[in-house]
Amino acid sequence: MSRVINFSAGPATLPLPVLERVKSELLDFEGTGMSLMEHSHRGAAYSAVHAEAKSLLTELLNIPDTHEVLFMQGGASGQFALVPMNFLHQGQSADYVITGTWSEKALIEARIQGDAREAANAKNDGAFTRVPTNEELELDPKAAFVHFTSNNTVAGTQFHSFPEVGDRPLVCDMSSDLLWRPIDVSKFDLIYAGAQKNLGPAGVTIVIIRKDLMATGREDIAKIFRYSVIAGKDSLYNTGPTFPIYVVRNVLSWVKDQGGAAAMEARNRQKSEMLYGLIDAKSSFYRSPIEKASRSVMNVVFRLPTEELEKSFISSCADAGMVGVKGHRSVGGIRISMYNAMEPSNIEKLADFMTDFCAQNS
Amino acid sequence: MSRVINFSAGPATLPLPVLERVKSELLDFEGTGMSLMEHSHRGAAYSAVHAEAKSLLTELLNIPDTHEVLFMQGGASGQFALVPMNFLHQGQSADYVITGTWSEKALIEARIQGDAREAANAKNDGAFTRVPTNEELELDPKAAFVHFTSNNTVAGTQFHSFPEVGDRPLVCDMSSDLLWRPIDVSKFDLIYAGAQKNLGPAGVTIVIIRKDLMATGREDIAKIFRYSVIAGKDSLYNTGPTFPIYVVRNVLSWVKDQGGAAAMEARNRQKSEMLYGLIDAKSSFYRSPIEKASRSVMNVVFRLPTEELEKSFISSCADAGMVGVKGHRSVGGIRISMYNAMEPSNIEKLADFMTDFCAQNS
Repeated sequence: MSRVINFSAGPATLPLPVLERVKSELLDFEGTGMSLMEHSHRGAAYSAVHAEAKSLLTELLNIPDTHEVLFMQGGASGQFALVPMNFLHQGQSADYVITGTWSEKALIEARIQGDAREAANAKNDGAFTRVPTNEELELDPKAAFVHFTSNNTVAGTQFHSFPEVGDRPLVCDMSSDLLWRPIDVSKFDLIYAGAQKNLGPAGVTIVIIRKDLMATGREDIAKIFRYSVIAGKDSLYNTGPTFPIYVVRNVLSWVKDQGGAAAMEARNRQKSEMLYGLIDAKSSFYRSPIEKASRSVMNVVFRLPTEELEKSFISSCADAGMVGVKGHRSVGGIRISMYNAMEPSNIEKLADFMTDFCAQNS
Repeated sequence: MSRVINFSAGPATLPLPVLERVKSELLDFEGTGMSLMEHSHRGAAYSAVHAEAKSLLTELLNIPDTHEVLFMQGGASGQFALVPMNFLHQGQSADYVITGTWSEKALIEARIQGDAREAANAKNDGAFTRVPTNEELELDPKAAFVHFTSNNTVAGTQFHSFPEVGDRPLVCDMSSDLLWRPIDVSKFDLIYAGAQKNLGPAGVTIVIIRKDLMATGREDIAKIFRYSVIAGKDSLYNTGPTFPIYVVRNVLSWVKDQGGAAAMEARNRQKSEMLYGLIDAKSSFYRSPIEKASRSVMNVVFRLPTEELEKSFISSCADAGMVGVKGHRSVGGIRISMYNAMEPSNIEKLADFMTDFCAQNS
């Protein structure tokens, strides 16, 4: 088997040991004589996986007792709706920090549920090339909550320090960078993340929610869509996506084996410094449109001198066993996504390739 | 590897060839050098799987052009909320046929969204032992829709002919029996099914919806929760549960290889006749509480003379490599779930075991 290097933005590459573990257990999970997929979500075998996934995430992110970990479905797009459905009470307004496609979509869903305003909009000349500083936020003192997107996969920007919002509940879509490094969870009231970038396969959404906030949720919405109901049954109110949660458990276990969130940060910084370093060193050929202070460690976007050369770059990458490098259709160019699972050695290979490509085409 | 016989009600046993195919492709999907889990939901490899899952279901159930197939998340519990959120307009009332735990839950969610009434309630002396006949339905002429549950996993009852509801839209939760046999899809306006019983692993919900009904859906609810939005993007409005959908594709492909829905019906009738035949032949020991005309082909529930004997039956089953036979905690007794994937030879083994157990304990 020849494994390609997969720079896709998500669903994204997974650690090979995680996949090997899944494969080895596929027909017979821990000697039970059946696949994990065939186990009841209320049986002992799956219950242990469920509990371990939760405790590993709690340990790796040092999640305090004030917060609850939930496994839900529907991805970030589901959360775009559920957050205002639960926490935007009648007569209230919520603040949204707009830094790209995903926060724009979150705002659209919020405005279907009630009032929501832009506390900042980082769009400039039609493009998102930075995230706002704290000083640029125009916060509503009475905001029901403040919502932002920590990492913007399409634009290639990332918050390296988080908005300071005082007493307002802080809600963050961390779909593309949860667990890239340690964070202080206590500063957040709600964090959510589709798993398919940094945490596992598509089909499960990780939610970390402050219990105090959860208790204020609306009770006139569908039971299945209340965080309090899901938490009250330890994410087993209904049959959850057991197999995706199992793979997440394996990913978290792999992160722990690697040294945890701090080790992930070192590894991710090493990769991003290598790649941005090369781009800056060859800035007459590779051009990062992103302000340095806002550059994403997860998704590196850059342009080449011409669209012709970008096409050639993409096809030469494929020839070299590197796929998923095409930028999002809305912005063009090249995008290299390198979540936790991306090995630094693959970024070295890419950097070598880019050095050669530049030399041959300058 | 010693494979157990898994009679769980769901997540349930899957066809061994399906699991073997998943295992063989796990690290390298069709020579792409990566797992299906790692493929972009918009890439060529996954797109082909997505399209094939849809076309196989369309073929196997002979789904007419008037209907759309969707892949969603949240299971039947999600649909309990989404159906009234979309189709219970202000001032309207919906009719629910109550035949067990799941239809009761569906009614509770409907009443959070608006008015809903019981068109029938099959509970008698605290138990659900039959489904209502057509004559017993008290339908509201103006009902926004009529909702029923085709098979009741907890009670062990099943509709063998479907309610006739005239011009009212007919909505059916077929989570536990979709594709057990051919059906006339044109009689339904909306069919939904969590995959984890007859169709695949947990984490994906199959929806078959009449386009005419879909067009009448409310537009003041979250975009992610509108059937019309999901259909408009061919179930790729957001990142779906790609791996569960892939396994469903494999299950559908297996069903086709076996001869399709008609072959499933023959196989399922063979199993159910074998098991009910034995129960009736030994009715002084094994007792089916279900009226014959309402007996489920999927979930066979029965009692033994004492709860002691039931405990002994469950542990003796486990010793014989047969698990998941305990009845739902709300009704007790024994429950044998035997969806499409359950091999008739396993029901033969169970029948032999039951014959012996009866002889030893009568």
